[in-house]
Amino acid sequence: MTIRRVAIIGLGLLGGSIGLAVKARSLAIATTGWDRDPAVRARAAERGLVETVCATAEDAVAAADLVILCVPVGAMGDAARAIAPGLAPHAIISDVGSSKEAVATALAEALPGACIIPAHPVAGTEQSGPDAGFATLFAGRWCIITPPEGCDPTQLEALSAFWTALGSKVELMDAAHHDLVLAVTSHIPHLIAYTIVGTASDLEDVTQSEVIKYSAGGFRDFTRIAASDPVMWRDVFLSNKGAVLEMLGRFTEDLTAMQRAIRSADGDALFDLFTRTRAIRRQVIEQGQDDERPDFGREHGA
Amino acid sequence: MTIRRVAIIGLGLLGGSIGLAVKARSLAIATTGWDRDPAVRARAAERGLVETVCATAEDAVAAADLVILCVPVGAMGDAARAIAPGLAPHAIISDVGSSKEAVATALAEALPGACIIPAHPVAGTEQSGPDAGFATLFAGRWCIITPPEGCDPTQLEALSAFWTALGSKVELMDAAHHDLVLAVTSHIPHLIAYTIVGTASDLEDVTQSEVIKYSAGGFRDFTRIAASDPVMWRDVFLSNKGAVLEMLGRFTEDLTAMQRAIRSADGDALFDLFTRTRAIRRQVIEQGQDDERPDFGREHGA
Repeated sequence: MTIRRVAIIGLGLLGGSIGLAVKARSLAIATTGWDRDPAVRARAAERGLVETVCATAEDAVAAADLVILCVPVGAMGDAARAIAPGLAPHAIISDVGSSKEAVATALAEALPGACIIPAHPVAGTEQSGPDAGFATLFAGRWCIITPPEGCDPTQLEALSAFWTALGSKVELMDAAHHDLVLAVTSHIPHLIAYTIVGTASDLEDVTQSEVIKYSAGGFRDFTRIAASDPVMWRDVFLSNKGAVLEMLGRFTEDLTAMQRAIRSADGDALFDLFTRTRAIRRQVIEQGQDDERPDFGREHGA
Repeated sequence: MTIRRVAIIGLGLLGGSIGLAVKARSLAIATTGWDRDPAVRARAAERGLVETVCATAEDAVAAADLVILCVPVGAMGDAARAIAPGLAPHAIISDVGSSKEAVATALAEALPGACIIPAHPVAGTEQSGPDAGFATLFAGRWCIITPPEGCDPTQLEALSAFWTALGSKVELMDAAHHDLVLAVTSHIPHLIAYTIVGTASDLEDVTQSEVIKYSAGGFRDFTRIAASDPVMWRDVFLSNKGAVLEMLGRFTEDLTAMQRAIRSADGDALFDLFTRTRAIRRQVIEQGQDDERPDFGREHGA
């Protein structure tokens, strides 16, 4: 099976970047797209995120070999119902959501009998909307595919080949395990960042202006993550509740231990942790998962 | 009073960057330096971090108008005692430490009668040591000076002028208030980052290799901060215990509220917070405190 036509439902950061990547890489794949918001459809057409922006979801998916739902995970069921009448019988239905068990369930309920293969490209920025996408977003990044039991191997291979053609490295994983791994590497970091930014902006004894002025001490890094799309992230936490609460419990245990070490002036406990974590950063860089330049390569000097 | 000779004690990221900035800006200021570690002194001389690397702290500070202690806050007392025999009577003693009440106390004890004006340039990277410094580290960044009561205004003015000449924007602040503000904007963000990186590397059900592979989901940002110098940060937490524990208490209260919102599927509470925090990011960028490019301007595309 070869994918010759892909339909992108939802034309924000992820959907737009898929369309632009197909174009930039001159893949022999036609792209159509749709978004629930007419203003987003208009802007997507202006930017040429896909070759054809359609007026309805049904039109967008007609004759598509692959349909990718690029909407918040809480909107997957509705999006699936919107495309249902137009789907070709052989079409693969996939997505880009950050939690996978809930999406698999929602899609299976909305599209009984369809070939559903959920996926999650681990890539993004803090921006969102039809102006945020760019063609190199997926290059060199992992895309985790979570095939359901009994998934057709030729369709799985076609989806893998599609992501590989966009420059991604593909990994197959069980949906439940995906949700646990991403709770640690993505969901808890976002929850912590949102929370500390909220805490800092609510203080009475330190003004918001001070928080912003002196944010270069570390806080500003958290503000980037805490600027991520609110609807997308609300849905992630609601849809991956079990794994998030489990991992959050472990984090707060460890934080309580650090609190106790500070209170009792246990410098060795602090030093031991701070030394161990340095080694993790080295591995992140060695494995090509981050920019090796200091401070992410931020510009220094005004 | 004009500063014509500055002595830098401790030739790591901060000390080295001060020396390089003086040179790069062609200021009419002679620089001398010393580090406790002979290997650091040798490397500092090779890189030309200061004009003269001295064999002893006493030699380094001889005839200096300004001495800047660039050592971990827990080592300030020892450094002050090491320079005491060589200090000129008119010399200003300052530092770059991240907590200010404890430093003020340690320096006052070690150097009774000296002119001590603590300072904190809010600038840095995750790197440390004599190879980490660069001339533009302070450009456009805030330097907070915490003058003690009864501080000589001409000496305060000279120190302010020095930091302004390095490209910094100077702000005066009470030491206790500094420690509270920086607990929020710097110390708690570091503690949280160190802790989550530790948590993630200790799991049994998610391998360390998975954590690193999928770190682009948000976690990798935290690994950068958690790669910061372990000795420096141990000392920060031990020396700013009160403010850190106070702010940590507020953060954990807010995190518990988020945990409850997730458990009870209160999507509105999540959405409200996630929307508020976006506005903070906008202000951080508008006020020139971070790179406005998405993802800190990280390179995308392998």
